[in-house]
Amino acid sequence: MATSSSTPAAIPKWQAIGQAKREEISALLPPEWRIDPIPAPEELRDATSYAEQFLTAEEKEITGTLSAAALLDKMAKGQLTAVQVTKAFCHRATIAHQLTNCLSEVVFNQAIADAEALDAAYERDGKVVGPLHGLPVSLKDQFRVQGTDTSLGYVGWLGKKETADSESWVVQQLRRLGAIIFAKTNVPPGLMTIETNNNIIGYTLNAANRLLSSGGSSGGEGALIAAGGSILGLGSDVAASIRLPSALNGIVGLRPSHGRVPYLGVANSMIGHETIESVIGPMGRCVADLRLLLQAILGAEPWRADPKVLRLPWRECEEREAREKLASKKLTLGVLRNDGLVTPHPPVKRVVDEAVRKLEARGYEVIEWAPPAHSEGFGIAWSAFFADGGKDIHSQLSLSGEPAVPDLAMNFGDKPGHLRPNETVNELWDTQRRRYEYQARYLQYWESTAAQTSTGEPVDAILVPVAPTVGYERGRGLYPGYTTVYNVLDYSAAVVRAGRADAARDLPYDKFEPQGDLDATIQAHCMHFPIGNCLLQSLRC
Amino acid sequence: MATSSSTPAAIPKWQAIGQAKREEISALLPPEWRIDPIPAPEELRDATSYAEQFLTAEEKEITGTLSAAALLDKMAKGQLTAVQVTKAFCHRATIAHQLTNCLSEVVFNQAIADAEALDAAYERDGKVVGPLHGLPVSLKDQFRVQGTDTSLGYVGWLGKKETADSESWVVQQLRRLGAIIFAKTNVPPGLMTIETNNNIIGYTLNAANRLLSSGGSSGGEGALIAAGGSILGLGSDVAASIRLPSALNGIVGLRPSHGRVPYLGVANSMIGHETIESVIGPMGRCVADLRLLLQAILGAEPWRADPKVLRLPWRECEEREAREKLASKKLTLGVLRNDGLVTPHPPVKRVVDEAVRKLEARGYEVIEWAPPAHSEGFGIAWSAFFADGGKDIHSQLSLSGEPAVPDLAMNFGDKPGHLRPNETVNELWDTQRRRYEYQARYLQYWESTAAQTSTGEPVDAILVPVAPTVGYERGRGLYPGYTTVYNVLDYSAAVVRAGRADAARDLPYDKFEPQGDLDATIQAHCMHFPIGNCLLQSLRC
Repeated sequence: MATSSSTPAAIPKWQAIGQAKREEISALLPPEWRIDPIPAPEELRDATSYAEQFLTAEEKEITGTLSAAALLDKMAKGQLTAVQVTKAFCHRATIAHQLTNCLSEVVFNQAIADAEALDAAYERDGKVVGPLHGLPVSLKDQFRVQGTDTSLGYVGWLGKKETADSESWVVQQLRRLGAIIFAKTNVPPGLMTIETNNNIIGYTLNAANRLLSSGGSSGGEGALIAAGGSILGLGSDVAASIRLPSALNGIVGLRPSHGRVPYLGVANSMIGHETIESVIGPMGRCVADLRLLLQAILGAEPWRADPKVLRLPWRECEEREAREKLASKKLTLGVLRNDGLVTPHPPVKRVVDEAVRKLEARGYEVIEWAPPAHSEGFGIAWSAFFADGGKDIHSQLSLSGEPAVPDLAMNFGDKPGHLRPNETVNELWDTQRRRYEYQARYLQYWESTAAQTSTGEPVDAILVPVAPTVGYERGRGLYPGYTTVYNVLDYSAAVVRAGRADAARDLPYDKFEPQGDLDATIQAHCMHFPIGNCLLQSLRC
Repeated sequence: MATSSSTPAAIPKWQAIGQAKREEISALLPPEWRIDPIPAPEELRDATSYAEQFLTAEEKEITGTLSAAALLDKMAKGQLTAVQVTKAFCHRATIAHQLTNCLSEVVFNQAIADAEALDAAYERDGKVVGPLHGLPVSLKDQFRVQGTDTSLGYVGWLGKKETADSESWVVQQLRRLGAIIFAKTNVPPGLMTIETNNNIIGYTLNAANRLLSSGGSSGGEGALIAAGGSILGLGSDVAASIRLPSALNGIVGLRPSHGRVPYLGVANSMIGHETIESVIGPMGRCVADLRLLLQAILGAEPWRADPKVLRLPWRECEEREAREKLASKKLTLGVLRNDGLVTPHPPVKRVVDEAVRKLEARGYEVIEWAPPAHSEGFGIAWSAFFADGGKDIHSQLSLSGEPAVPDLAMNFGDKPGHLRPNETVNELWDTQRRRYEYQARYLQYWESTAAQTSTGEPVDAILVPVAPTVGYERGRGLYPGYTTVYNVLDYSAAVVRAGRADAARDLPYDKFEPQGDLDATIQAHCMHFPIGNCLLQSLRC
């Protein structure tokens, strides 16, 4: 029989496709904006402000100082043009990509053309076209954007450029509101890991410490924003994917509850899976910017297009009540210090303790949070995510024949058969029953805190570490439990900055008694942690 | 080999259990309230007011004339006692059960004791205990009520009496608000048919025409309320179950959208199935009463207990806007005259036509509703309900060894294996994907009606027949499509009275071209329909 054993070794087709895509992206980065040489991660850990030396003073102000609201205000007053703002972010995003490998699609030319059109309209009409006039917004790769691929990290999905009609509904609305889409950001295949790596773009480094992971699945978005290459973006979160990259890269992010932000026309993994719904949310540099983007999206009345979105505008009244509670010191909080599975590393523990002390010093009441076991909630999430035994993930990989990247293989296996799929839909229904019962018990616990507060009301919010670690190295993204339980519960969750690791205060570590094998493993990573120049730890409320 | 072939014939155990339950119920109906003889259905078709001849003037007023609001008002003013009101409904419910076989649980003694306690509290405090003080409320058999079984129509579920702790959350709240639970009503096994029949209570007759079906699955509730044996009750609806019994028996009912009324602790079929969610809603004699019960339940802040309930109180503002639209004649409606699968019978067609003409005469605009094919929506519902191939239903039947009643067997088979279950969860996810896409297209169509209305806004509501028929005989409950599509869409839907069949106007029928086999079959039932003394046809808006 004839064989092809004598054919010279060629790279597999999936590898060639990935390489072509990387080259396509590189070719779209304007030479005049690129840096050369690119410092190695060991030489330059923190890449958040490295780009500034290559920027004009104006670019520096646009990309590094002003909030989204301030940018919008300046453009509305004619003090900045959309082209100036767009070019500044494209310039800095170019450097951010060179330093962290965060982009999956580059649409600078179209963005600049869009900005020119906005400037012309402003010139002509003397007013902005909408509330986001001229604001550059970056998007996780799952959003469908005209002229780009929507790979979701799969080689096999490349090569089908989106059109104006196939754009995700929210993308069309962002444009209508005046936003400029200039880049999409890297994701792991299927969005189902907490490190951002794939066979197309490769591994995305953490912008705040390039020796570490950018997290996932919105790792590209986290790194781009942290490096100043974008001011606001949209990510999505089904287990950790907005919150963990926000925390690890040191930015802020919001995972709203399900039914607020339109998913219509946005690509996803395991389409039709609804046991734990993925939700879209904003990522940015300050909370006010997150609010701005969310309000703009709700202002587009997404319930008129997406049947999963509630007919519920931004609630001024609820916001006012929250502000009044804040002002009158009537706000009460719970604090979760340890989820019972993985012990927070010393810097995380310290920052949580400090946050509680600061809140108490300002007159707020904080009680210890002792909810139904998080191990149960985490187990439910895993039953939900693995219900098909990874069939969907492996089907998408098989389109190109690409292998699962290691972080994906860790959970879903190198090939189908690693996980046992649900044998009947009754098994899935049982997972959903368990989820509902867990939600009900957790809610009952929350309500029961009324007996512990001085207001006689249940706590208003809870403070929870985003992760047990302040960061992790490649291949060590092992545990999203601190965030995932709140997907099971479908609570809205915001990541805010609360402090940084600090060798002077956090070392030497105390003797440690692990709660289990996973805890021991992750704690061991802590011991070897490059703590000197590291990350912000954020809390959720 | 020894055999038991010579043992004298005994009835199977499941049959004995059903018989014992029926006898238990009969024994709980006070002899002084029972009627004797019970007229045969052929002698007495319409049982809605038959009981009145056996009532005192006061009982007649309480059970036949006053609205729930009026009853509450009289009790609040001390003009009626809770005991008077409760006894009146217990009396009339006794007769209603004798005429229609609508009750599944009788708790008159406890109800009267509860009423005495309320009266004592009122005497002592000079005020009502809550907004539902003294109001008797009936419940579909799936609600868990202290001291009763929760059979859901399954013989195998009998014999486990509920306790105060195991009561459904909403039942506990109804009590807290002052309501009195005095009866539960009959359902088909698993709530999954549109006729009410089981091996415990048997077949429930239509109160407005005892030759016909009471519908299902809230058929017991529909018959009891229509016969004046209850003023307000709670049913549930996953395909037709509030709306069809309401329409067939000639009462009103509301199927709210999912996430408003708490299901916590309420029994159900296929627990954990969420592809199309069952929802609880009120059934009663007038729309104002439905509103009263729903507002009372929302006032109990169900989101503090049930994680599936939205944190969304009754919206006064939305109600005011709707009223203003009504008053200013700016309200616009769509009308669906034929769903493309089963043609409405002549009386239904006529009543829809008349309703449109009346609305137009009052100055409202009505446009023809031509949505995405209802056949597609109906197909999605069937994929969802049959996803497990009837495994759950047959597992519950097998607990006692009882056979499937014919109407259940028609859909789910005599035994397991009749339906093909989903082989993977991916298949269920695909059904959910199809549901979402159908919802999105239907919504897009709804929004597109803005181009057709004089207001330039999409229509505010749609008028749709509840069923193609004004009623059906036993064994002919074949088609819930007119309601089920709105479960797939998760639209709130109210059943209101719009007219009655009328031989003088509806006969002779026109020549008929069926849209398909099912249409031909159902139209043939129409030809033989006992139209003289028949049902109200209702529309949904």
